Amino acid sequence: MPDELKENCGVFGIFGHKDAARFAYLGLYALQHRGQESAGIAIADGSKIECYKGMGLVSEVFNEEKLAKMKGHLAVGHIRYSTTGSSEIKNAQPLVVDYFQGSVAIAHNGNLVNTQSVRRKLEEHGSIFQSTMDSEMIVHLLAKAHGERFEDRLIKALKQVKGAYSLVVMNKDQLVGVRDPHGFRPLCLGVLDGSYVFSSETCALDLIQAEYLREIEPGELVIVDRKGLRSLKPFPRTRPAQCIFEYIYFARPDSLAFGKSVYSIRKNLGRELAKESPVDADIVVPMPDSGNCAALGFFEVSGIPFEMGFIRNHYVGRTFIQPSQPVRDLGVKIKINPVRDVIKGKRVVVIEDSIVRGTTSRTRMKNLREAGAKEVHMRVSCPPHRYPCFYGIDFPTREELIASSHSTEEIRKYLGLDSLGYLSMEGMIKSMPFRKNEFCLSCFDGNYPVPCREKPVLKCF
Amino acid sequence: MPDELKENCGVFGIFGHKDAARFAYLGLYALQHRGQESAGIAIADGSKIECYKGMGLVSEVFNEEKLAKMKGHLAVGHIRYSTTGSSEIKNAQPLVVDYFQGSVAIAHNGNLVNTQSVRRKLEEHGSIFQSTMDSEMIVHLLAKAHGERFEDRLIKALKQVKGAYSLVVMNKDQLVGVRDPHGFRPLCLGVLDGSYVFSSETCALDLIQAEYLREIEPGELVIVDRKGLRSLKPFPRTRPAQCIFEYIYFARPDSLAFGKSVYSIRKNLGRELAKESPVDADIVVPMPDSGNCAALGFFEVSGIPFEMGFIRNHYVGRTFIQPSQPVRDLGVKIKINPVRDVIKGKRVVVIEDSIVRGTTSRTRMKNLREAGAKEVHMRVSCPPHRYPCFYGIDFPTREELIASSHSTEEIRKYLGLDSLGYLSMEGMIKSMPFRKNEFCLSCFDGNYPVPCREKPVLKCF
Amino acid sequence: MPDELKENCGVFGIFGHKDAARFAYLGLYALQHRGQESAGIAIADGSKIECYKGMGLVSEVFNEEKLAKMKGHLAVGHIRYSTTGSSEIKNAQPLVVDYFQGSVAIAHNGNLVNTQSVRRKLEEHGSIFQSTMDSEMIVHLLAKAHGERFEDRLIKALKQVKGAYSLVVMNKDQLVGVRDPHGFRPLCLGVLDGSYVFSSETCALDLIQAEYLREIEPGELVIVDRKGLRSLKPFPRTRPAQCIFEYIYFARPDSLAFGKSVYSIRKNLGRELAKESPVDADIVVPMPDSGNCAALGFFEVSGIPFEMGFIRNHYVGRTFIQPSQPVRDLGVKIKINPVRDVIKGKRVVVIEDSIVRGTTSRTRMKNLREAGAKEVHMRVSCPPHRYPCFYGIDFPTREELIASSHSTEEIRKYLGLDSLGYLSMEGMIKSMPFRKNEFCLSCFDGNYPVPCREKPVLKCF
Amino acid sequence: MPDELKENCGVFGIFGHKDAARFAYLGLYALQHRGQESAGIAIADGSKIECYKGMGLVSEVFNEEKLAKMKGHLAVGHIRYSTTGSSEIKNAQPLVVDYFQGSVAIAHNGNLVNTQSVRRKLEEHGSIFQSTMDSEMIVHLLAKAHGERFEDRLIKALKQVKGAYSLVVMNKDQLVGVRDPHGFRPLCLGVLDGSYVFSSETCALDLIQAEYLREIEPGELVIVDRKGLRSLKPFPRTRPAQCIFEYIYFARPDSLAFGKSVYSIRKNLGRELAKESPVDADIVVPMPDSGNCAALGFFEVSGIPFEMGFIRNHYVGRTFIQPSQPVRDLGVKIKINPVRDVIKGKRVVVIEDSIVRGTTSRTRMKNLREAGAKEVHMRVSCPPHRYPCFYGIDFPTREELIASSHSTEEIRKYLGLDSLGYLSMEGMIKSMPFRKNEFCLSCFDGNYPVPCREKPVLKCF
Repeated sequence: MPDELKENCGVFGIFGHKDAARFAYLGLYALQHRGQESAGIAIADGSKIECYKGMGLVSEVFNEEKLAKMKGHLAVGHIRYSTTGSSEIKNAQPLVVDYFQGSVAIAHNGNLVNTQSVRRKLEEHGSIFQSTMDSEMIVHLLAKAHGERFEDRLIKALKQVKGAYSLVVMNKDQLVGVRDPHGFRPLCLGVLDGSYVFSSETCALDLIQAEYLREIEPGELVIVDRKGLRSLKPFPRTRPAQCIFEYIYFARPDSLAFGKSVYSIRKNLGRELAKESPVDADIVVPMPDSGNCAALGFFEVSGIPFEMGFIRNHYVGRTFIQPSQPVRDLGVKIKINPVRDVIKGKRVVVIEDSIVRGTTSRTRMKNLREAGAKEVHMRVSCPPHRYPCFYGIDFPTREELIASSHSTEEIRKYLGLDSLGYLSMEGMIKSMPFRKNEFCLSCFDGNYPVPCREKPVLKCF
Repeated sequence: MPDELKENCGVFGIFGHKDAARFAYLGLYALQHRGQESAGIAIADGSKIECYKGMGLVSEVFNEEKLAKMKGHLAVGHIRYSTTGSSEIKNAQPLVVDYFQGSVAIAHNGNLVNTQSVRRKLEEHGSIFQSTMDSEMIVHLLAKAHGERFEDRLIKALKQVKGAYSLVVMNKDQLVGVRDPHGFRPLCLGVLDGSYVFSSETCALDLIQAEYLREIEPGELVIVDRKGLRSLKPFPRTRPAQCIFEYIYFARPDSLAFGKSVYSIRKNLGRELAKESPVDADIVVPMPDSGNCAALGFFEVSGIPFEMGFIRNHYVGRTFIQPSQPVRDLGVKIKINPVRDVIKGKRVVVIEDSIVRGTTSRTRMKNLREAGAKEVHMRVSCPPHRYPCFYGIDFPTREELIASSHSTEEIRKYLGLDSLGYLSMEGMIKSMPFRKNEFCLSCFDGNYPVPCREKPVLKCF
Repeated sequence: MPDELKENCGVFGIFGHKDAARFAYLGLYALQHRGQESAGIAIADGSKIECYKGMGLVSEVFNEEKLAKMKGHLAVGHIRYSTTGSSEIKNAQPLVVDYFQGSVAIAHNGNLVNTQSVRRKLEEHGSIFQSTMDSEMIVHLLAKAHGERFEDRLIKALKQVKGAYSLVVMNKDQLVGVRDPHGFRPLCLGVLDGSYVFSSETCALDLIQAEYLREIEPGELVIVDRKGLRSLKPFPRTRPAQCIFEYIYFARPDSLAFGKSVYSIRKNLGRELAKESPVDADIVVPMPDSGNCAALGFFEVSGIPFEMGFIRNHYVGRTFIQPSQPVRDLGVKIKINPVRDVIKGKRVVVIEDSIVRGTTSRTRMKNLREAGAKEVHMRVSCPPHRYPCFYGIDFPTREELIASSHSTEEIRKYLGLDSLGYLSMEGMIKSMPFRKNEFCLSCFDGNYPVPCREKPVLKCF
Repeated sequence: MPDELKENCGVFGIFGHKDAARFAYLGLYALQHRGQESAGIAIADGSKIECYKGMGLVSEVFNEEKLAKMKGHLAVGHIRYSTTGSSEIKNAQPLVVDYFQGSVAIAHNGNLVNTQSVRRKLEEHGSIFQSTMDSEMIVHLLAKAHGERFEDRLIKALKQVKGAYSLVVMNKDQLVGVRDPHGFRPLCLGVLDGSYVFSSETCALDLIQAEYLREIEPGELVIVDRKGLRSLKPFPRTRPAQCIFEYIYFARPDSLAFGKSVYSIRKNLGRELAKESPVDADIVVPMPDSGNCAALGFFEVSGIPFEMGFIRNHYVGRTFIQPSQPVRDLGVKIKINPVRDVIKGKRVVVIEDSIVRGTTSRTRMKNLREAGAKEVHMRVSCPPHRYPCFYGIDFPTREELIASSHSTEEIRKYLGLDSLGYLSMEGMIKSMPFRKNEFCLSCFDGNYPVPCREKPVLKCF
């Protein structure tokens, strides 16, 4: 995956641990790959909620001094992806508000699709909006909902919204984890010294040495408070639509996502790819690190020697200064450099997880040629991306997705490849631990599980 | 005035200048003495509003890079005082929200008194609150108000709130300046190259070389848009209650506040003080810089030689590190040091603008003794502060105001003075350009022009 | 004094206090007006020397974390003036080096004049230079000197250099304070809880509550170690040449410099000025804060009412952003603003400590006219500056000193004044506590006490 | 390689390109893995040398503003490893000094061994030292050397020092690259648009798209100036002693070091390891990223399936905050997490490049067991490290090297392994492109090519 694709968000929650803030900090650390734009933690001590957030990496936003101030046994954490446009502190989460029934903090992964109409209705009734987060809409609905218990009001609010949401929500003494009825985005449950933990992926549980219990189910709402843990399924049953792209690119390979091993699935994808789209080559080379697992699977089936022909620079900072007479493709090359001695004179098949715009891939392929590759082939471990995502992934617009307007042959030419093969839809599904109709495949086939007639006002969550 | 007293806020607005953001920046620079906690500017270009704010001084929050991005001809700026507790970015202003009729930015100086009941009512109808600013309440009311024009809705909103507000408000193409019916806090109007400007004090007009036109009147609402300037007086007539403490301490001496020269009034206060409370002393010494003008007036009447017996360190930063074995009163002394050669062997009368808690004054007086003063007298250019302020000044609680529970003689002893004299209420009023019933004097006499039965939920402004 | 004139340096030393680093920090805090470019502290614990320095104010360079690491009972501190050109960390002091006899740290206020020839000689013998500080030359000479005791070698080194130096030097267990034979720059001695303290001015002693003992004499070298304090006078006797400009502008008014009260001398200057150069005016206004004391003296003699007609903004940061269409004279006005109400319709006499280039003064005088002054007169509390300083003050070159090439009448016209008067040489000397031949007056009369045939290679000190 | 081992330095130089500073910046970017403590660039324009350096990563030390100021066609760059103790700006390089013949800038990779005696001699003759870098000694010797040409003086200086140095040195119009007679550290030569370039590794040439020409030979001195490139071999011939650890751990796998492919050699090491030390296991897992290549070689020979069973977190910042009740081994786990699904129930053989203290490895092995590994074996791609390095690698002291006092069986037990195998000396040499006597193997066998009788005063370069 070239870095054109913006990542989505990560959420975390913990109930009942005196070190709640620090564990939230650690959990976000482990989820950092899901977003590098902002980080925040809300903490409750049974009587009030406080929130600390800022722009940047978890390690930049928090320090010992701040964490020391964050007293409480209940915490919700959030990290957000990095974009340029609307990158503002006002859009950092968790969002904490006061309303009639007290205070509430919300951390949201996903994107709603009926924001325009709901927001218009809310505004007509006098609501004001301080951010462009659709999470703010959920809180407005919550504040207007009736019902004795917090969960009743939350359920009433959620029944009015459509789209993708894995939420971790808390008031001053309860923690709630919930996935939308389709379960677009992941959310799992763990336990640490008797304290329940919610996290987007299990790698956060691993780090804090919490025990993994299970994935929250689509449409399930889990409430944790002093009385323990309760599970509700308040929404009408519908078909699951779990984001298949979590398996292909987003989640860390050492995580379980939707309850299944990301590493193993990626290897399966590579195996299928080798079966479907064989190639006569001397070496198979992953695009590090997102292509590593698939490349191992491809090698396993094809028998073509596996070489780590690209090396990743671990010290790439945020800014990078060009010489006045720009070096060709410097921005691309600073991150990943081919190993000349491995590549030279070889017929190389590169394993990529996906192609979005194609511009970065094009440069990388040119670098391979310059390093002496005799032939350059590419195999992609999913089908072509033809449609935008409305459920939380900041894909480019349809116009920018190269596969939306170009045939595979045209893309092959654009990237300067000797051959190009995408994994088929069938091959992708065959590699998965769920059936086809349990996934959202809309970025590949345009079939949106939740209709999205409105032009989304909000760029993304 | 010892620095125990937190300052209040400053507001600024400009309509119709292509350099609006930079002029707002300059205006806030000149108003920086009114608050050092946070600074913010909202900018509109006729189609949308963007807002930049941060914690710290104007010169720390803004830089060339940020200002260069702030395109628009309409700007609202705000600076906030410095406290420790609720000092958070979420309470920085201007507050910018979206509502049914578009976007609005608001900068508020002052404090409302009926926040609890209004907020409860709003929350009952489902409103959510993201800050502890009472300005957020005004925006909620605005969003719920009906009326075709922006000003109609704003007036409807303001009719529901009670207390102190000098506001600069804008939508994407209109700028409004308004003072509450009592006119607690100042707000003036100027013009620069045909662009109208609002500012808390005239020193901001001076800096940008705008021409001072007049003070906005209590209860007046001035709308500036492409069609020009209109003035409305939508509120029932009531008596003015302008904060007398602006003249005594807050405003810069080179400003006009409520349309009158601060410098001249302070000199008057000193003159009256000398008449009322003469003293047999060798030198009169101002507490710099807030006692300077009154000391000149005191000298003029008393004939006692004026000496600048305290020197202020201009490089006092924010943090200051104590030796492990703390030097006595270091924090006080680092800011202001007596001039031994001037003080030694002299009977000194110190001119202070006011005494709040008395702790800092006590240390300064001890420093004077250590510098060799033979006698130390103090004259204060206002009556004793006995009551808290509910209209926007972050006075300590009543318990902390030394004069609320101690007689002048007790205070004299506590401060270690040979004599202590406060200006009388009559003397103070005599020094002023308005009549007694045009001021709010509640911090002195406990007569609150707007009843304040509610315990204010919001700490301040 | 307009801020065109760069200040010189400040030095501080303390021996025998477990909190040595913190007291050095505090001492530099009090001396901050002598330089804002860099700050540094070297600390020794009897076995080794460590040094911490950085660009910026004392409060910016040091924090609790750094100070906590600085263990030792012996410290030397230095602050440096702010320039633009050679403003580099490599020129920050103290300079700490290792040589045959151990380690040495040096803090230097002043400027040598025979640097070129000495440096050439040193380089011919193979010395390398890592900075442009002439203090580095002293250390080279020290390292090459023979002699059993540290002081012997230091004296041998100092005998080879000419010019101005007030030094605080230490090795791992001795602290030395020394003034050059002419005593160009000040250095005083104090004591705190039995620990000896050196400082450029007494305001640093005041802050840490050390007792002032005396000024180090010109040509005196004071050694402090575990055995106590010894004084040497190793240099051939010569006439003192103390910088008169310390009294006129540099030193803080609450300090003793060269053992005498700066405040009182400045008042004397104002008194003489009023006698020599009377004027028919309505008010006398100091240029704050450097003209305050002289203005009080001027008022005392002239009887013209004293008004603080200029107000200084205490929140002027380092950077200041202009609007695209620059406001006239904004940079000047942001710092000091006239009080219109005081100035309007008045014949004003402004008291300035000195005029260097004249550009800032010109703007300020124009601002006075714009504020409505009927007449504007200026009286300057020293004679015209016609010659550069080679002993440590970063005056402009002769070409830039307006008085080097313009008559007083021409300057009056340039500044737009109704009248202009400088204090005469005789009047200045009459105001002083020393005789004429005990001062360096070279910036006024061009008579350089130490011949300076070499073009100084080093910009300063 | 656990991160206990401090890396050494990287050097870069370029002559004759108008963008010299930016290319130096880019070159250091590519060499960042060789040191993260400080970064610096000296730039010459034919008349003078300026230098910019700071603590931290290249991307933190430099920004567009600084680079824009660095005008010149000749640049030398340096990055330094990260330690805690002597981590000070005064030890950052390049070192720039003025001496009799002008200015010189030096960047040094390696460590001298006769520093004590040479430094003592220099100090006896009056030299002063401002840092603990032995590079400062070279400059002293250079300044004292006679000879008409720069290279003559440099050669005379270098003939007096012993130990490891790959230097890039420049005066205002010449650039010199030189390796010590044994050639301990690498240095290569490239060309970019007619400009010659020196770099520690070829990855820097790749990034700026310079063409690789050749490795500088041991004892070779290459001078580049306007007349072109000259090569000298001024030192008595001796045997090469190239650091074999560059191949095992230091250099980037996409680099040539000493002219040969690091990637290929590491794979050879893995192949030999599999032959020498076979194991009955289910999967072979590299310790990322330093064990990747050897693991591929191990797999190739053993046929045991290759799995990336450890995942590296790419967002590990500098500081990391522990919960109050420390999570076990958190610091280790945050960086690298095992993939439970891959490990569970498997007999795992982990490929490490080396073991230094053993503490980190021990934790990682425990993590593997916790992830469900049935057996844990380790194979190390070099022999045990028993001796410290005196030539530029900041190994722990001998006492801290676990293999200096423990048998392989003891280490196996300490690490909690089922089996442990090191590559033999013979196997290591067999994997290399040079003969045994062309390497420095002292960290393995204690045979130091340059005797090191002195206890090195300087911790490391």
